[in-house]
Amino acid sequence: MWCSTINSLIFVWLLCVHSMIIAQHVEDNCYLPHNLIEEIDSYGPAVQRIINETMQGSFKGATWEDLATFVDKFGPRFTGTKVLEDAIDYVLNKSIDLGLDNVHGEPATVPHWVRGSESATLLQPRQKDLALLGLGYSIGTPEEGITANAVVVNSFAELKKRADEIPGKIVVYNQKFVSYGETVEYRGSGAVRAAELGAVAALIRSVTPFSLYTPHTGMMSYAENVTKIPAACITVEDATLLGRMADRGETIVINLKMGAKSYPDTQSRNVIADIAGSSAPEKAVVVSGHIDSWDVGQGALDDGGGIFISWNALKVLKHLDIRARRTIRMIMWTAEELGLIGAEQYIRNHAAENGNMQFVMESDFGTFAPMGLEISGNEMVQCILQRIMRLLAPLGDMQLKSPSTAPDISFWIKAGVPGGGLWNRNEKYFYYHHTNADTMLAENPKALDMNTALFAAVSYVLADISLDLPQHNFSSVSH
Amino acid sequence: MWCSTINSLIFVWLLCVHSMIIAQHVEDNCYLPHNLIEEIDSYGPAVQRIINETMQGSFKGATWEDLATFVDKFGPRFTGTKVLEDAIDYVLNKSIDLGLDNVHGEPATVPHWVRGSESATLLQPRQKDLALLGLGYSIGTPEEGITANAVVVNSFAELKKRADEIPGKIVVYNQKFVSYGETVEYRGSGAVRAAELGAVAALIRSVTPFSLYTPHTGMMSYAENVTKIPAACITVEDATLLGRMADRGETIVINLKMGAKSYPDTQSRNVIADIAGSSAPEKAVVVSGHIDSWDVGQGALDDGGGIFISWNALKVLKHLDIRARRTIRMIMWTAEELGLIGAEQYIRNHAAENGNMQFVMESDFGTFAPMGLEISGNEMVQCILQRIMRLLAPLGDMQLKSPSTAPDISFWIKAGVPGGGLWNRNEKYFYYHHTNADTMLAENPKALDMNTALFAAVSYVLADISLDLPQHNFSSVSH
Repeated sequence: MWCSTINSLIFVWLLCVHSMIIAQHVEDNCYLPHNLIEEIDSYGPAVQRIINETMQGSFKGATWEDLATFVDKFGPRFTGTKVLEDAIDYVLNKSIDLGLDNVHGEPATVPHWVRGSESATLLQPRQKDLALLGLGYSIGTPEEGITANAVVVNSFAELKKRADEIPGKIVVYNQKFVSYGETVEYRGSGAVRAAELGAVAALIRSVTPFSLYTPHTGMMSYAENVTKIPAACITVEDATLLGRMADRGETIVINLKMGAKSYPDTQSRNVIADIAGSSAPEKAVVVSGHIDSWDVGQGALDDGGGIFISWNALKVLKHLDIRARRTIRMIMWTAEELGLIGAEQYIRNHAAENGNMQFVMESDFGTFAPMGLEISGNEMVQCILQRIMRLLAPLGDMQLKSPSTAPDISFWIKAGVPGGGLWNRNEKYFYYHHTNADTMLAENPKALDMNTALFAAVSYVLADISLDLPQHNFSSVSH
Repeated sequence: MWCSTINSLIFVWLLCVHSMIIAQHVEDNCYLPHNLIEEIDSYGPAVQRIINETMQGSFKGATWEDLATFVDKFGPRFTGTKVLEDAIDYVLNKSIDLGLDNVHGEPATVPHWVRGSESATLLQPRQKDLALLGLGYSIGTPEEGITANAVVVNSFAELKKRADEIPGKIVVYNQKFVSYGETVEYRGSGAVRAAELGAVAALIRSVTPFSLYTPHTGMMSYAENVTKIPAACITVEDATLLGRMADRGETIVINLKMGAKSYPDTQSRNVIADIAGSSAPEKAVVVSGHIDSWDVGQGALDDGGGIFISWNALKVLKHLDIRARRTIRMIMWTAEELGLIGAEQYIRNHAAENGNMQFVMESDFGTFAPMGLEISGNEMVQCILQRIMRLLAPLGDMQLKSPSTAPDISFWIKAGVPGGGLWNRNEKYFYYHHTNADTMLAENPKALDMNTALFAAVSYVLADISLDLPQHNFSSVSH
């Protein structure tokens, strides 16, 4: 999952912040036409079949097993690497073998940033290695590194107040974790704000509520006319250590070495596989996640889980020989972590088809036990979804909240296409996010089955229902 | 905190296992003489003063601050390092400045093991770095490392069954975490058991119920007439990954490099500081913890917290000008992590004084919010302690359980001296134990204050009470 502040995508970031702070449950004030209610309810037996097959039948545990096989085989799948393209080929080939329709990769031009080797060493007041992860798009340092005194600040406000101390220094941000949406701004724009005041590098406290000496990576961005300086995240443990040392008046000297480098853009692919619609194949419901990951851990949670509940939703439907009137399309986005790169290009290239998009779904905030969906759509869409949620009762009390904060599909939602993301019990999501701990240990077989069933059932009902969902005026539903 | 299986100390290990599995609360079937009850209860006002001064008075937050200053200054304090001896000097000098009595270091001969640089790389089925921490006392590898196929086993039973596969292999133990006492046997004797079957190295899943890609170190031991092979702990994430790869029939090849080396024994010191008794200074109550730590993290929890609640208990009493009839002695043990080395020598050297030991206390299982004490002593001792616990009501409902599992003081307890350790809410203790995450983030100011108050109050009452506590026949109280 990616949230940042780069200007062109400020909208997405606002959604992230917005949702995390004031997301609201959808109230049940729905008055749908009686025949529509009847039609939705008539999908009950089909939904039950899907849930049974996924939870107790031949697919029980399959999403976990399939995901483990995939992430164990490929490991992390960073944009610009051969392993990402190999993983894409694996999905394409398996999708063809499974008899899915329209299986293909759609080219996307993607950035090519390479971490290189990196280290940070506290030299004064005592020698200590500082675990770190450089941030995506950061420049590197000279080979001998940058050695400078550090100024530790707890906030952007403090940085501003102490502007005269900053020139020539390494700025260490020891900001508290408030929420991801709010706190990630330090990772996104910490380097620019420090560089504006003359800093030579920025070290940012990892954006997480809990750490076991765990550095987190993620994206940062530079601004025009501001000197680019290297930026990395250090652990909460070391940021607070440096904070205490600074509070005691100790002089802090750090050496930072980063081999990070940006290369010319390269090519990747979004992965598409369909169950073609029986009567209106040009119309589609999309289930999606992103296939790329950061270059740490296994990308199991971010976003292996998302792509596998999407893919396995199609596999379950195919296995049950369930074909809807409209197409059910799985998309695995590429280069999400470097700024929604694959999704932006795909959706731009397919803008003419927006009117055919019935509903777009995504999972990119973890695949823990589901709580429902977080959606954007007008009142009617919300009411239809609410009625569909009732069919999912065997999975528990599935609810809706609004708006959607799903990142990749946000371009569609902005264009008026109704859609939304998985809402799940992801309180611990940011423990693992963008770290070496993003592995299969963070995934649970039953939760994955539930999410696969939810994606399969919702996408099927919406793809088969007689009504074309109304699109929305974005401004009316998302703020 | 150290628990292992080396033969000479099997007793301590049994205590560890025993307590973690069948520790029982002490029942309230006490019939103390009326005048003894009255005497204990008469300490109520003094205990209240101690608690007030620690929790709300001039010592509020002091244990956290003092501990942070110490661990931030020195970092980890591994046996055989100059930094441990510097830390010992720091405590000695401060204790003299504070006006404590009998301040001195008592020499102890200690092992000198050095980790050196270390790495493990998965070469097949795909290339991947495996985070690791070599185990204390392990031998190193040749410079180019050991490259061998790996056999992954889930238990010693499986190792035995697959004995014919082991020669020439690296054994990877992917044992589940059951409890520390039970599971740590893999760390302690995994190398020996693998070497007996011809393995060339052992990689053990870190002994923890929760991981964020966190390797844990700790002690291992070799056995006579069994070839010494290198041993290290890898993360739960990588152990389970290797387990899944093996289950899929994949060939696993690993390169292990360890620069570990043992040097001739060297010298360290146990740290002693007293508040001398007013009328029976030769008799003593001991509060203690160990000053050495593993060479990772800050040794804040293991066992910075233990030594600082002990030291600050004396500081509070000194500040309040409270002097008991008997001596209250703080001891900071050295070289605990390498096998209770300092404590064993101290207690052997002072065996003649055992009869003067009124009660011995220790904190080495974390300094989270206190729940009471875990003690060894006969019925009368237990009943006296139970009555004293009532005086601590301002700290919450303090309880007793039995037996004591405190490691360093176990030599005294075995000799019949009543004593015990802090019982605290340490459910997450093993998240941090022997890792880089053992830092001040794992410590809480209020919990530390409560523990300091508890140690100060209990040690004062027991040091001042008219009755010499009866010693026990060890076999009658600990099993």
